[in-house]
Amino acid sequence: MFGIWGHKKAAEITYYGLHATQHRGQEGAGIASSDGTSLKLHKNVGLLNDVFERAELEQLTGEAAVGHVHYVSHHDTGYENVQPHLFNSQSGSIALAHSGNIMNAHDLRGELEDEGSIFHTRADTELLAHLIRRHGKKVTEEGIASALRMLTGAYTFLIMTENKLFAAVDPFGIRPLSIGRIGNSYVVASETCAFDLIGATFEREILPGELVTISGAGLESTRFAMREQRHLCAMEYVYFSRPDSDLNYVNVHASRKRMGIELAKEAPIEADVVTGVPDSSISAAIGYAEETGLPYEMGLIKNRYVGRTFIKPSQEMREQGVKMKLSPVRGIIEGKRVVMIDDSIVRGTTSIRIVKMLKDAGAKEVHVRIASPPIKNPCYYGIDMSTREELIAANKDMDAICDSIGADSVAYLSPEGLEKAIVKDKTINQGICNACMTGNYPVKVNTGHTTYLTN
Amino acid sequence: MFGIWGHKKAAEITYYGLHATQHRGQEGAGIASSDGTSLKLHKNVGLLNDVFERAELEQLTGEAAVGHVHYVSHHDTGYENVQPHLFNSQSGSIALAHSGNIMNAHDLRGELEDEGSIFHTRADTELLAHLIRRHGKKVTEEGIASALRMLTGAYTFLIMTENKLFAAVDPFGIRPLSIGRIGNSYVVASETCAFDLIGATFEREILPGELVTISGAGLESTRFAMREQRHLCAMEYVYFSRPDSDLNYVNVHASRKRMGIELAKEAPIEADVVTGVPDSSISAAIGYAEETGLPYEMGLIKNRYVGRTFIKPSQEMREQGVKMKLSPVRGIIEGKRVVMIDDSIVRGTTSIRIVKMLKDAGAKEVHVRIASPPIKNPCYYGIDMSTREELIAANKDMDAICDSIGADSVAYLSPEGLEKAIVKDKTINQGICNACMTGNYPVKVNTGHTTYLTN
Amino acid sequence: MFGIWGHKKAAEITYYGLHATQHRGQEGAGIASSDGTSLKLHKNVGLLNDVFERAELEQLTGEAAVGHVHYVSHHDTGYENVQPHLFNSQSGSIALAHSGNIMNAHDLRGELEDEGSIFHTRADTELLAHLIRRHGKKVTEEGIASALRMLTGAYTFLIMTENKLFAAVDPFGIRPLSIGRIGNSYVVASETCAFDLIGATFEREILPGELVTISGAGLESTRFAMREQRHLCAMEYVYFSRPDSDLNYVNVHASRKRMGIELAKEAPIEADVVTGVPDSSISAAIGYAEETGLPYEMGLIKNRYVGRTFIKPSQEMREQGVKMKLSPVRGIIEGKRVVMIDDSIVRGTTSIRIVKMLKDAGAKEVHVRIASPPIKNPCYYGIDMSTREELIAANKDMDAICDSIGADSVAYLSPEGLEKAIVKDKTINQGICNACMTGNYPVKVNTGHTTYLTN
Amino acid sequence: MFGIWGHKKAAEITYYGLHATQHRGQEGAGIASSDGTSLKLHKNVGLLNDVFERAELEQLTGEAAVGHVHYVSHHDTGYENVQPHLFNSQSGSIALAHSGNIMNAHDLRGELEDEGSIFHTRADTELLAHLIRRHGKKVTEEGIASALRMLTGAYTFLIMTENKLFAAVDPFGIRPLSIGRIGNSYVVASETCAFDLIGATFEREILPGELVTISGAGLESTRFAMREQRHLCAMEYVYFSRPDSDLNYVNVHASRKRMGIELAKEAPIEADVVTGVPDSSISAAIGYAEETGLPYEMGLIKNRYVGRTFIKPSQEMREQGVKMKLSPVRGIIEGKRVVMIDDSIVRGTTSIRIVKMLKDAGAKEVHVRIASPPIKNPCYYGIDMSTREELIAANKDMDAICDSIGADSVAYLSPEGLEKAIVKDKTINQGICNACMTGNYPVKVNTGHTTYLTN
Repeated sequence: MFGIWGHKKAAEITYYGLHATQHRGQEGAGIASSDGTSLKLHKNVGLLNDVFERAELEQLTGEAAVGHVHYVSHHDTGYENVQPHLFNSQSGSIALAHSGNIMNAHDLRGELEDEGSIFHTRADTELLAHLIRRHGKKVTEEGIASALRMLTGAYTFLIMTENKLFAAVDPFGIRPLSIGRIGNSYVVASETCAFDLIGATFEREILPGELVTISGAGLESTRFAMREQRHLCAMEYVYFSRPDSDLNYVNVHASRKRMGIELAKEAPIEADVVTGVPDSSISAAIGYAEETGLPYEMGLIKNRYVGRTFIKPSQEMREQGVKMKLSPVRGIIEGKRVVMIDDSIVRGTTSIRIVKMLKDAGAKEVHVRIASPPIKNPCYYGIDMSTREELIAANKDMDAICDSIGADSVAYLSPEGLEKAIVKDKTINQGICNACMTGNYPVKVNTGHTTYLTN
Repeated sequence: MFGIWGHKKAAEITYYGLHATQHRGQEGAGIASSDGTSLKLHKNVGLLNDVFERAELEQLTGEAAVGHVHYVSHHDTGYENVQPHLFNSQSGSIALAHSGNIMNAHDLRGELEDEGSIFHTRADTELLAHLIRRHGKKVTEEGIASALRMLTGAYTFLIMTENKLFAAVDPFGIRPLSIGRIGNSYVVASETCAFDLIGATFEREILPGELVTISGAGLESTRFAMREQRHLCAMEYVYFSRPDSDLNYVNVHASRKRMGIELAKEAPIEADVVTGVPDSSISAAIGYAEETGLPYEMGLIKNRYVGRTFIKPSQEMREQGVKMKLSPVRGIIEGKRVVMIDDSIVRGTTSIRIVKMLKDAGAKEVHVRIASPPIKNPCYYGIDMSTREELIAANKDMDAICDSIGADSVAYLSPEGLEKAIVKDKTINQGICNACMTGNYPVKVNTGHTTYLTN
Repeated sequence: MFGIWGHKKAAEITYYGLHATQHRGQEGAGIASSDGTSLKLHKNVGLLNDVFERAELEQLTGEAAVGHVHYVSHHDTGYENVQPHLFNSQSGSIALAHSGNIMNAHDLRGELEDEGSIFHTRADTELLAHLIRRHGKKVTEEGIASALRMLTGAYTFLIMTENKLFAAVDPFGIRPLSIGRIGNSYVVASETCAFDLIGATFEREILPGELVTISGAGLESTRFAMREQRHLCAMEYVYFSRPDSDLNYVNVHASRKRMGIELAKEAPIEADVVTGVPDSSISAAIGYAEETGLPYEMGLIKNRYVGRTFIKPSQEMREQGVKMKLSPVRGIIEGKRVVMIDDSIVRGTTSIRIVKMLKDAGAKEVHVRIASPPIKNPCYYGIDMSTREELIAANKDMDAICDSIGADSVAYLSPEGLEKAIVKDKTINQGICNACMTGNYPVKVNTGHTTYLTN
Repeated sequence: MFGIWGHKKAAEITYYGLHATQHRGQEGAGIASSDGTSLKLHKNVGLLNDVFERAELEQLTGEAAVGHVHYVSHHDTGYENVQPHLFNSQSGSIALAHSGNIMNAHDLRGELEDEGSIFHTRADTELLAHLIRRHGKKVTEEGIASALRMLTGAYTFLIMTENKLFAAVDPFGIRPLSIGRIGNSYVVASETCAFDLIGATFEREILPGELVTISGAGLESTRFAMREQRHLCAMEYVYFSRPDSDLNYVNVHASRKRMGIELAKEAPIEADVVTGVPDSSISAAIGYAEETGLPYEMGLIKNRYVGRTFIKPSQEMREQGVKMKLSPVRGIIEGKRVVMIDDSIVRGTTSIRIVKMLKDAGAKEVHVRIASPPIKNPCYYGIDMSTREELIAANKDMDAICDSIGADSVAYLSPEGLEKAIVKDKTINQGICNACMTGNYPVKVNTGHTTYLTN
């Protein structure tokens, strides 16, 4: 998610800002702009590059814009669910984009429908538009705050009217949103790597329960909820964010390297080489190698050209041994005892495949080291994970996991080790949410209808 | 380049084999197949993924195939120049693909045209077809050998008729070509990473001046030229090949890591972190860090989504600071003395940009270390480089280079260090061509009309 | 517009039905289907052929479907305005498609927004959804009837829920909608040519003010409005519909031929040949020729390949004489006195061009005969015409028109002649709306905000 | 085929000229231009509109151009066979385009291959390039004339070098080619409708056996063969050409109308209406109606939107009655005795379908009248017809044909009637080739290897 206020090239800057965060959603992309009197929108399914050509950007005139890249899990994939959403009324327009998951969305929609509301999409974003509308025809800070107070969940929102840009973070700060400056303009982004790419400077994080209003009058801040201890999603550090981003004042690569260092302290092993599963586990592997003194090697190579038009190998081809995403580097692996660092294990199927690949390439031993604790619980806050039934660590002990993935040994980082790697200074409110590992959910979970998530 | 003989899924295997070597050419792709009685061809400009869908693969029936990915520099980019080339005659068909550069192509074309030959393309591949044809209507091993003897240059060729597959390497072995096995089938590829991806096993390198004939009768070998000392292109190791490939029995990643180690021995420096320019300099950076004991860090991140449909930043945007390909990781760089490892410097413009990027991100010092010797001479053998006028090292001394790229210090690996890093055992003929660095050209250069190169 | 109930290939039949009516809208296309428990939708901007491939049709499962081809004039062209519209709620889904124009749309939207409604589009279709919703969470015949009663205008609607298909025509029957049968299934279409193409048989017209409900229980009919005298749009006969359609029991080609016959009676002229402007004026030209005894000739040819990807001639090319849509047939025109039959004149610019084209091709005289009365008034009922300022007949008398288009004589059919050509039997309620010619508007016009029209 | 010399917008004019002749080939399109020093080419498979966008036209600089639209029957469809063909040599370039069929192509290729020639395509065009090359490195009028003299067949050629444009017609003038003027520039086209579209004026036909040379020195003419009696292909008049073209000074529409008139004289029938199969039989139907005094009606409508992306009806749909290309107009057909005029019958399958369609739409009787004689012999001169085995008239007598297509009566125009309709004045050499009807082949047929045809 990306927003900007007060820049002549608002839509173009937003395009580049979304580029930096393309890894957060590859199913759709959209940008809405405001020229002070009306809003314009272009969006579609597909990668950002496929959705926009210069002509589309040029039509998005005005000095404010919000953009979004769409992340789809098991839900609707059509155009309707791509964000931002734009609603026009005779009293003005409003564009909305959001990340995360509204846990009481089902109940709130039911109530709204009882009152005659009509929904086009299944997106939580549309829900907020209706709630804001219930507070008056004009979109105000108070109306948005009231609407946000009705939501339970983990989320960030960007809301744009003809002459204001609003940004909000859930009361526990589970999802990240940062403010930056480029010249005299304010920018807002899910990750700070967007600021680096566009040449903006980081200003500060938006706080849990904070609603920020940006307009010609500058930036104003209000609280729509009691301030809680920050519980930033640990998985953002573990694998979701880009290594060059800072989240809550902590660099992601650096935190991953520390995860590798802690993991080395907790679970050392006698071996010849350390290798990481690209891309997200490289940092941890370097940390592990540094701490143990073992050489770090590129034992696995990622094929960069596996795009969406790629012809997938048939079963027959796969049996023949064709493998597309990762290739083992035989010259490095052969005859070696390998420590394979991965960031996490969800269902275990990928690990089975990689361990086998390394053994087939001649590895004498494969020791799997996971740079985060076992994932035993589902996420209700917007990270798409499997159900508990599929989570390997929810159903098997260490020995059984080691057995099932075919490794010579397996070890995970402890929750304490993870916290140590991420949190540098609790006094500046650097708490994390590790509910998927520990089951300690900061926001109470209603297991009935927590259905929708976007990112 | 990739070829296969004797496999029911010849075209499909070729597709995956080309996938592994997609980095060798991204301007066009093609596959020709033989079903024993006729040849079929599909090719087009664009990435392999864009050129082929399943339907096209399925039409390429038969148990033999050759494929090519097209690499264009300053020459023709149209469909005509995409390989393989297919020529039909009443006495049979022939498909050809080649890499490298034929240095006497201009003269040979002139002679052939004088005799009435008509050329469709400017590709050297077509030249060979005419030369083979001059030796008789039937394509024979002898005819190919005679034709190859007329060529001067650095090349590999794959030639397929209805019932044979031929593979050849130039007399000095400047360009690489390897033989593998998958089940009972022979495969031939420019890089061994293609074998790993399709589940084939490496068999051996094709030797300098060797012509291999594969058919129902198995594999036969002949010499078309006096065997010379192997001079495998050093730039294949330095940056062109994939790190997981073995070239002439030497793993590319491992050789790069050794380049970093040698560089550390030759040019150490007091600093805080070592970082590599992704992707090709990472191995050397790890080696440098390992040898010096400095921590290796990901100080530069490559944006994975900059494809061909991407909207390039305007001048105004670039001045604003928008940078798309590489991002510096401020959290790692800030306040540090950085050793920046790069694989080579050609014109120097990229180095200027990266050094500035690191300084802008707060680096206290930037020490540039290049894991290969200065490039001072043009390549006539198929690597697309600048002319001597543009080569920074041909025109400036070390101080001037350091000055012009804005670094605090600059050092290159020595030619001896490079050779040490690549050549493990000269007795198995592991010589390299380093003409672009030293000016020692193994094949005599005619500076008149050495114009065309494909890869 | 097309709908079907009770057919295993509902979506596929709808595709072919829309094909037959593609001339009614070329800016977008969509189909929604119902499988009895949920609705699915696929739509996009573009021609029907571009929007649908087999895969999309196959995903539209179920035995009921409604489809629409989108016609855009000066209004929004984006995806959002393409029909059908689909609205999901926890109590069920509803798909809507409509043709025509709701004249009190602006006022109704204002009232709904005051009550908290949120609109995604500017389409009148969405308005009806809100009005239906105001009558209860479940979509019922009564709710639809009540909603329709709130509308003022000329329209047809198709409304589909999980288990019913509704079809409605405005109280004056200005826009056409017919019922047919294919096997045991009911089909509904804007024009009967859709029935012929899919092999269905015509059953009857839907009457003015009638709401038809089709479900497992068969077809039921109700009145939502006092039955008025039918006022079917005369322009449907004059140029909008396909000649093979029957509208209100009158064949379009036959009516056009009669227009030509009446025109010949009213405005004969001494000449050598009669020619029509293709395609819509051919029928009238044949009638004119038949009545006058003059030979009918193809003096003008339409270029069939001028599609949307066609490169339009530059000003320079047009001055050079390049003309793309129509070509004169010199061999027929040269030296002749030509009667040029056209169906209507709106602004006159096309007539100027064609008369000049004929004269340039050597016509000695060009006598323009228009097979409908002069258009002097705007249409508020869904036909996209110019404003009164642009209508040539609203601003000029016959002599001035003749002068301005460069003809040797001009004559129009009289309103009485037009009615005689169309209406065979008034007792079966075959009245027409000719407001654009006579100013007699059947539905009272509010000139304030009658903005939107789709077809 | 289209060529132009001496116009600043040569490529653009060629694009529009090809537009007018798009009906002559829809499988590929290409344009080559000359700027006086080099030739440029853009071509691809697909419709003209799909192959060219403005950018491609703008790159085709220079004041001369030749273009071609590709017509494929049972032969190769790939890019290689799309024309023009461009050949580059160190002594100059040459672009060629051709229509028709070279009957001794197989033998000539064999001879050339024996001498070492290599062919890229199976196109006869490439053959001519080799033959011209055999007469010297420079392309001269004499060389072309010599090469043409080696060919046996029916053809037209356009040949462009850096500074000349050549146009040639076979010795019997079987295929048409006309010269026109636009300003000071010469244009050459397969049909005169191209001149009308671009605003050019017709100058004259190129004569049988004539080779025209256009350059800065103006237009020069030479004979490369003894002048024979013109034998212009009768099928060009019957269905292949556009009705607005003049072929050999005879308007196509007018000739078709006369075919209908002659047919009415030869084979009248008592009936209610006359209808033609669109588009090519409309002219003859009008003539037949005029002569008999029966009313001409549009009993069959062609669906304009059946393009290449159209989803074809499945067997199940076709059985259901879905028909896409033609629709019968029930309102006109029902209860009537119909005379159905078609231009020709080849295999008879289309006639079966249309007669059935008319009967299903309620026709009481269907009398088929064919406005040309029965086709009993294959064409070796470039019109793609069935083999003799498939030609219905080669294998059945009139009664059997009538029976098999389900008509109430069938009659064809006589060869004498056809000649009367086409040839106005034999003294100006207006002979026709009717070999497919009579077996009188003007060019001796070698039934061995007459394989390739393009148009």
